[in-house]
Amino acid sequence: MMKLRSSPASPFVRKVRIAASLVGLTDQIELEDADTASPSDSLRQQNPLGKIPALILEDGETLFDSRAIVEYLDWLAGGQKLFPAPGPERFKVLRGLALADGITDAAILLVYEQRWREPSQHSEKWKDHQSGKISRGLASLESAPPPESVFDIAAIALACMLGYLDLRFQGAWRAGHPRLVAWLTAFDAAVPAFEATRYRA
Amino acid sequence: MMKLRSSPASPFVRKVRIAASLVGLTDQIELEDADTASPSDSLRQQNPLGKIPALILEDGETLFDSRAIVEYLDWLAGGQKLFPAPGPERFKVLRGLALADGITDAAILLVYEQRWREPSQHSEKWKDHQSGKISRGLASLESAPPPESVFDIAAIALACMLGYLDLRFQGAWRAGHPRLVAWLTAFDAAVPAFEATRYRA
Repeated sequence: MMKLRSSPASPFVRKVRIAASLVGLTDQIELEDADTASPSDSLRQQNPLGKIPALILEDGETLFDSRAIVEYLDWLAGGQKLFPAPGPERFKVLRGLALADGITDAAILLVYEQRWREPSQHSEKWKDHQSGKISRGLASLESAPPPESVFDIAAIALACMLGYLDLRFQGAWRAGHPRLVAWLTAFDAAVPAFEATRYRA
Repeated sequence: MMKLRSSPASPFVRKVRIAASLVGLTDQIELEDADTASPSDSLRQQNPLGKIPALILEDGETLFDSRAIVEYLDWLAGGQKLFPAPGPERFKVLRGLALADGITDAAILLVYEQRWREPSQHSEKWKDHQSGKISRGLASLESAPPPESVFDIAAIALACMLGYLDLRFQGAWRAGHPRLVAWLTAFDAAVPAFEATRYRA
């Protein structure tokens, strides 16, 4: 049994869990919540960065970050289920993955602005900078949403990013992005793991 | 000719440039500096996240982030020069890449604390959190440095991370990490692209 160091609201943990489900490995992975703020949590021995997700393999080796983990799970399941073989299609998927993860990173930095700082330490300039990444990224995706019938790692990352914006920013993105709303509705209907991994506070 | 949207001091651009050199593609890539703070720079059309590096392919398609780019360059050069084939060795390399890049990310956030904020907006708590990732990551690498004879993408990322700590934090890491100092000295001697891509203000 592998162990996934987790946190229930993490979009990157959700990405790993949906990937595991889509390649049929859910029952080989046990979730174990980690306290990323606690020096005594074993997470910092498993991943010196202290970040989740981290996957503890059966031989005790650890693997991170989420991008390495999802590629590992795809390989473990036989390969080329979530990542195309090397070639132009693969690099389009890696670009889509980087775009979705990059928007998620910016959204997390906005959340951290609240979580880590006193109000007097907030920077409008920094928040605008991160918000710009999110709004430009969403506009780009809205102009050319991925096909609804493809469930690769870029699609999973996109769904988790939009789900995170729903969770932390009250779904404000939905107003201006009807094609992405339709895309997410279709993803949700087709991939039960999306609903199964939804965080409820 | 491909075009790499760049910035001379970026550790992630440096990783791409060293990777390109090691797979023999330097002369197929033209560098073009980007102003990541400027809305009118074409970078934001090429990469909605507004981040460098971004690689503009010959057909006009764009590729990011640095991890997607280096894998693309490896594939373009025939494959398995910087990334092992799928299997346990590949995932060890991806873990090493994620560790080095994760330390670099934390170091960049420390630099951004100065660059984006007024002194009154600095957060000691946030800076301690990022510094912890760096110090634990370095301790982990010091306890088991990679072999000096391997020049894969994890080694390149490690060299760029240490080079960035040299550039932005006056090499303070060197005092407590003699094995990493020796490793970097050997890397520098064996890989001319490391010196060739060194930033000089």
